[in-house]
Amino acid sequence: MRIVVVGAGGVGGSVAAIAARREFVECLVVADVDPARAQAVADRAGDPRVVAARVDASDPDDVAALLAAHRADALLNATDPRFVMPLFRAALAARVTYLDMAMSMSVPHPERPHELTGVKLGDEQFALHDAFVDAGVLALVGIGVEPGLSDVFARYAADHLFSEIDELGVRDGSDLVVPGRAFAPSFSIWTLIEECLNPPVVWERDRGWFTTPPFSEPEVFDFPAGIGPLECVNVEHEEVLLMPRWVDARRVTFKYGLGTRVIEVLRTLHELGLDSTTPVRVGDVRVSPREVVAACLPDPATIGPEMTGRTCAGLWVRGTGTDGAPREVYLHHVVDNAWSMAEYGCQAVVWQTAVNPVVALELIASGVWSGAGVLGPEALDAVPFLDLLTEYGSPWALREGG
Amino acid sequence: MRIVVVGAGGVGGSVAAIAARREFVECLVVADVDPARAQAVADRAGDPRVVAARVDASDPDDVAALLAAHRADALLNATDPRFVMPLFRAALAARVTYLDMAMSMSVPHPERPHELTGVKLGDEQFALHDAFVDAGVLALVGIGVEPGLSDVFARYAADHLFSEIDELGVRDGSDLVVPGRAFAPSFSIWTLIEECLNPPVVWERDRGWFTTPPFSEPEVFDFPAGIGPLECVNVEHEEVLLMPRWVDARRVTFKYGLGTRVIEVLRTLHELGLDSTTPVRVGDVRVSPREVVAACLPDPATIGPEMTGRTCAGLWVRGTGTDGAPREVYLHHVVDNAWSMAEYGCQAVVWQTAVNPVVALELIASGVWSGAGVLGPEALDAVPFLDLLTEYGSPWALREGG
Repeated sequence: MRIVVVGAGGVGGSVAAIAARREFVECLVVADVDPARAQAVADRAGDPRVVAARVDASDPDDVAALLAAHRADALLNATDPRFVMPLFRAALAARVTYLDMAMSMSVPHPERPHELTGVKLGDEQFALHDAFVDAGVLALVGIGVEPGLSDVFARYAADHLFSEIDELGVRDGSDLVVPGRAFAPSFSIWTLIEECLNPPVVWERDRGWFTTPPFSEPEVFDFPAGIGPLECVNVEHEEVLLMPRWVDARRVTFKYGLGTRVIEVLRTLHELGLDSTTPVRVGDVRVSPREVVAACLPDPATIGPEMTGRTCAGLWVRGTGTDGAPREVYLHHVVDNAWSMAEYGCQAVVWQTAVNPVVALELIASGVWSGAGVLGPEALDAVPFLDLLTEYGSPWALREGG
Repeated sequence: MRIVVVGAGGVGGSVAAIAARREFVECLVVADVDPARAQAVADRAGDPRVVAARVDASDPDDVAALLAAHRADALLNATDPRFVMPLFRAALAARVTYLDMAMSMSVPHPERPHELTGVKLGDEQFALHDAFVDAGVLALVGIGVEPGLSDVFARYAADHLFSEIDELGVRDGSDLVVPGRAFAPSFSIWTLIEECLNPPVVWERDRGWFTTPPFSEPEVFDFPAGIGPLECVNVEHEEVLLMPRWVDARRVTFKYGLGTRVIEVLRTLHELGLDSTTPVRVGDVRVSPREVVAACLPDPATIGPEMTGRTCAGLWVRGTGTDGAPREVYLHHVVDNAWSMAEYGCQAVVWQTAVNPVVALELIASGVWSGAGVLGPEALDAVPFLDLLTEYGSPWALREGG
């Protein structure tokens, strides 16, 4: 398979490191607006199949030329969400399989943002579903870890563990810390603010999608693998938009185990207006407060070597088991930063995101996964995915009792 | 008396509004680097004795020319602490009485900032004490409300209420809020950060001056006039440097009734590095994070009309009364924002700061207060000051029992 990865950040770099170990990859082009960054990823991979290129992800002609030049079978989007739509459209135009790990952006409801959805995550992409079907092209959206593996878990639970599902609740938590740093998020603070301060979205069978105020429905969830209990709150996340389309459940939620301290920090940034992306005047210049916050914190791409701890992505499912009895399970996947650093030189959170699209690409290359249109991971059979993930050396687990 | 006020901010403006009602003022020149700001203050005073001028407070020649041109008897410094030393030296050179409301800045101890003092608040000014004595010039330093009125209270307690003082504890609190704003400090966030994150200083008879980590010795103090209990913590403040020089006590502290929420906000800003004044790079520009925080918040000079509540400045004193029995009192002064806005068009915090140097200037003009050298308010008799403050329509109070 000939793959073009757009974006040579942490996730793109991990994709290259993981894919370079797999035989299905004929060629992997790492493309970035900064050619030096792409070249550095290719150099680290140290494999002649991995090559670097320059591309402007916002320019459809530039992307089309790149896909043609490399005779790409698939485009994996590892950029930030602003570039979803141009890359998604470029893949359709070129009739190339498209994968991403974050979906097109939401716009809050103009009058009642904490009750009603406006433009939802992925709406712009699903609007092109028929065009992808007509072109016979597969767009596999939200195939990182969350969304991604969490959605695979939903399909697995529906097919193999439950006869009826009351709630699909993604629950994400970690005990990652950077010793000596009071506050060092393991991924972009910009994205963390975006996810946490956008109105959280919930789906219920009787109501459809609706929104709540930020940080709603706090609960303490006990994470496995020694991570322990963390305060979790609703946030806006793709799974809530994906799962109800293919998996039958009464309720779908995403709660983020930020912990009390991070929730407090994000609330404070919001109260002070420091989460805003609207520039403020400071002396002779104008800057976005959120960019200033990001600039004050350590770069998440560089803290991997200093970080310690584990990250856990998973899906809590409550319902009626296949035997007719009430059942609760937590399907989950844990990555220890010490392991991912030693094994791949990659920080745990980006490695955990990157492994899933590589597994998916291998399933597509072998024909085990196929289709046309805009599909979420739960639209496809979960078992081969989970088996191949285990073969990659990173097994998942099931905790009975939720 | 011919007075030059340097700085036409909130405090300078209030000084003009208050002084314009007093007959001892022959001329009051409001000078600012921004002549329009100075003119606006003069226009608001609406009194021919109050005139505007332009001055660069950092330029000794410019200040000297201003003092000479107006044949000034006194220079009242209402600028921020960066300009203390040039204005202080200019007054000495011109042999003009000098007053300020904040003293020369401190520099933390380079190795053990949370145990030992480095350069203390006011050290640079006290180093010129002999020069002021030799020139026969009075520098009355720290004569706002805190420092200022709090120091007058210390002298009053020592002279009239106690035979022995165990602790002089300045306690400052308010219930000022801006309805609809979660966080709207009533004075500069820049200064609030500076005061609260600099190592707090404490004085003890046996140890002299020493420092602690920020937010040390939290206690809940019950403020009068309906403000109620607030969490107070040690901060660096001039009173601790002034009181022990003239008033006998075993311990001197300054605790700020920030309340739990403000303490939390300041801690968070510090953890994220957003309190820093060292510029960070954001895109093509470099900005001080602390300036960005300030730019995101409402301008304290403009929130007076929206604000509601009261501010209380005071001194808690514990020791042995003049009758030999244990005694605790809280000497205090409360300003209701509704009153200061209605009466003077001034926000409560700046009005409460500004009234004290005007009272002091009137005592100096009449010869009731006099001296040479660098003196704190506690070096002079408290009774005429407190009587005149009451005559200004803003009485103080004593709460027996602390």
